[in-house]
Amino acid sequence: MRDTDLPQSPIPDTSFPLTAHARDAVRSLRPSQIREVANAGFGLPDVLPFWFGESDRVTPTFIRDAASAALALGATFYTHNLGIAPLRDTLARYVSALHGATSADHVAVTSAGVNALMLAAQLVVGAGDRVVAVTPLWPNLVEIPKILGAHVDTVPLVYGAGGWQLDLQRLLAALTPDTKLLMINSPNNPTGWVMTRDEQRAVLEHCRRHGIWIVADEVYERLYYAGAAGETAPSFLDLAARDERVICVNSFSKAWLMTGWRLGWIVAPAALMDDLGKLVEYNTSCSPAFVQQAGIAALEQGEALTRELVGDLRASRDHLVRSLSAVPGVDVKAPPGAMYVFFSLPGASRSLELCKALVRDARLGLAPGSAFGTEGEGFVRWCYACDPARLDAGVERLQAWLERQGAGQS
Amino acid sequence: MRDTDLPQSPIPDTSFPLTAHARDAVRSLRPSQIREVANAGFGLPDVLPFWFGESDRVTPTFIRDAASAALALGATFYTHNLGIAPLRDTLARYVSALHGATSADHVAVTSAGVNALMLAAQLVVGAGDRVVAVTPLWPNLVEIPKILGAHVDTVPLVYGAGGWQLDLQRLLAALTPDTKLLMINSPNNPTGWVMTRDEQRAVLEHCRRHGIWIVADEVYERLYYAGAAGETAPSFLDLAARDERVICVNSFSKAWLMTGWRLGWIVAPAALMDDLGKLVEYNTSCSPAFVQQAGIAALEQGEALTRELVGDLRASRDHLVRSLSAVPGVDVKAPPGAMYVFFSLPGASRSLELCKALVRDARLGLAPGSAFGTEGEGFVRWCYACDPARLDAGVERLQAWLERQGAGQS
Repeated sequence: MRDTDLPQSPIPDTSFPLTAHARDAVRSLRPSQIREVANAGFGLPDVLPFWFGESDRVTPTFIRDAASAALALGATFYTHNLGIAPLRDTLARYVSALHGATSADHVAVTSAGVNALMLAAQLVVGAGDRVVAVTPLWPNLVEIPKILGAHVDTVPLVYGAGGWQLDLQRLLAALTPDTKLLMINSPNNPTGWVMTRDEQRAVLEHCRRHGIWIVADEVYERLYYAGAAGETAPSFLDLAARDERVICVNSFSKAWLMTGWRLGWIVAPAALMDDLGKLVEYNTSCSPAFVQQAGIAALEQGEALTRELVGDLRASRDHLVRSLSAVPGVDVKAPPGAMYVFFSLPGASRSLELCKALVRDARLGLAPGSAFGTEGEGFVRWCYACDPARLDAGVERLQAWLERQGAGQS
Repeated sequence: MRDTDLPQSPIPDTSFPLTAHARDAVRSLRPSQIREVANAGFGLPDVLPFWFGESDRVTPTFIRDAASAALALGATFYTHNLGIAPLRDTLARYVSALHGATSADHVAVTSAGVNALMLAAQLVVGAGDRVVAVTPLWPNLVEIPKILGAHVDTVPLVYGAGGWQLDLQRLLAALTPDTKLLMINSPNNPTGWVMTRDEQRAVLEHCRRHGIWIVADEVYERLYYAGAAGETAPSFLDLAARDERVICVNSFSKAWLMTGWRLGWIVAPAALMDDLGKLVEYNTSCSPAFVQQAGIAALEQGEALTRELVGDLRASRDHLVRSLSAVPGVDVKAPPGAMYVFFSLPGASRSLELCKALVRDARLGLAPGSAFGTEGEGFVRWCYACDPARLDAGVERLQAWLERQGAGQS
């Protein structure tokens, strides 16, 4: 239109009887129950939010400065689909130090960890394919294959005296020869469960035998508390050859406090990289060059930060578990990984309603277990990536609310 | 693994006989022929590159400064899936000024224009769906639906005395009632073709009648030279009601020199937005907050920049068309939009081989027409988003090379 004209409103033509809605596979994707709870608290003052999987700490200055410096230098052009060579090289060195020799031609940069999961799914699954996922689980791993027309069967973790555990035989039985892909997240969001080396070995051998792909979401690998200080959670990369059917997904979000940057990476067979490059082209084309430069700074200068962060998280976890254990009716165990406590309490058998009530009546923001699959019902998720004083305030609100509930019932 | 251990190499187990390769639908996606040409020139000194769809100018300082300021203020956290409210509001005002009243609940922020195309395709097409696209065309629009299992039929533009034209009746005939989606890009990459208002009206009415979705890629709408200064190319948004089956895709890349930022947007029916939010969650979750802040600066302070840029591009286009017209054997017409000249010359009937020879023997980087579909064969694409002196140097190389070819043949 001519810019000198006043804009006219479009003239609605009532001759389009068909309403606009997405296709059924998309409409039936789960909406976020966490967002539903957050919406229930919208506009309420003084809510203490522990519902999202995000630290309350801003990205460290040296990482932000690296992005600003790259911007000042004019890093505002397209990059290679698979990422700038210096970042791929730095990632290869980082991964090699943790998990054994990995060359840059096995590494690709992605526009977030979740984008890496989407790309990995696009690489291997299409309409009608069968995918298996271990739950409770961050919904994204279960929903992404459905966008591509795959169907997803779930194998539940088992909650017992030792916390969340894998029923290995049940998982192996579910990994039938007609299965295309196993999506597995360890350390796990929301439970904090960490797959053992022996479990990984058994699953890898089984999947090799049947040609089943493994997409391992290992974005919490550095947030691991069961070993010595600095120890990383067991990874499929420790066991798998680099050219077999294993795709490992990782992210800068958690270990470098970079949630909002949307920067992740994939370690995968070199034979996949040409096809992965095409998929990156058709999804986001590349990650911004200045964001990739920030990733290099994080890897090269961030090790002390990550170790300090993991130490703080371990202290926060222990503090929260200790505090919650003292609350009558709460059943809580210290999880070995990630940054959540996934625990049960009175009323959690309807966790969505419980969490809505908690935000409304106690100004406490928790995530309902049912957000992570039906297997998560009966639990709520508390992200402890914040300072202990805020955790204390949250526990006080929970305890007071539970006492009011008890008083009302008696 | 323990960080005190030396990393061991993974122990390859030869019992995985199945090689790792992507599924057939992904392997058969077209790789970029532009990249194939660029690779043929890899390591060669002094290549003049006109092959990519990118200006040689860095993003303006005020936009980069806005991102750096947001970083300094700590905008490093997740944002709403559909984008931060101030950017959605600013986009709504921008779109309203160009195309009539549009509220923020019809606008979503995406992680690039191509990401908007992927999201739009995910919203409406799945396995077995029929998609129609008008070609020659940037390959991404044709390949994206295939990732989702759809099949794509193409309708070719016709090249004649008036340049590239749409055969409207042929397009309407191809838009059969069983068609799910029309993907159309105007102003068009690579031809510079611009759909007329009357053609848009006819197509919209036809698609309304049959319930066919339209995804309109209008990322070049500001790069339009057929009207008065400041005039924007005809848009489906000028004709369509906001709640019918029309999804308009746009980007900050071209009109604000922000290719490397990966920031785009969608205008779509409000009834789609909940489902679109889910898809954003499962693709990239959000665009970085500091990148979104830069988008606000671009919209609020960038109008003079865009107009100056379009004036420069118009001058570059005219300059290049004039220069190329003087080269014997070249057939070139001034296109009404975008930032490419798509022209024929001796040898272009095998455009991939021609472009490889040009980069190797003339140090001239052009994109082969066949990169944009078989209908583009016989042509090459020249991006003129650079200063005239560089264009002159390129034309000199082309002319000298053609003369050498002619001398060799005679």
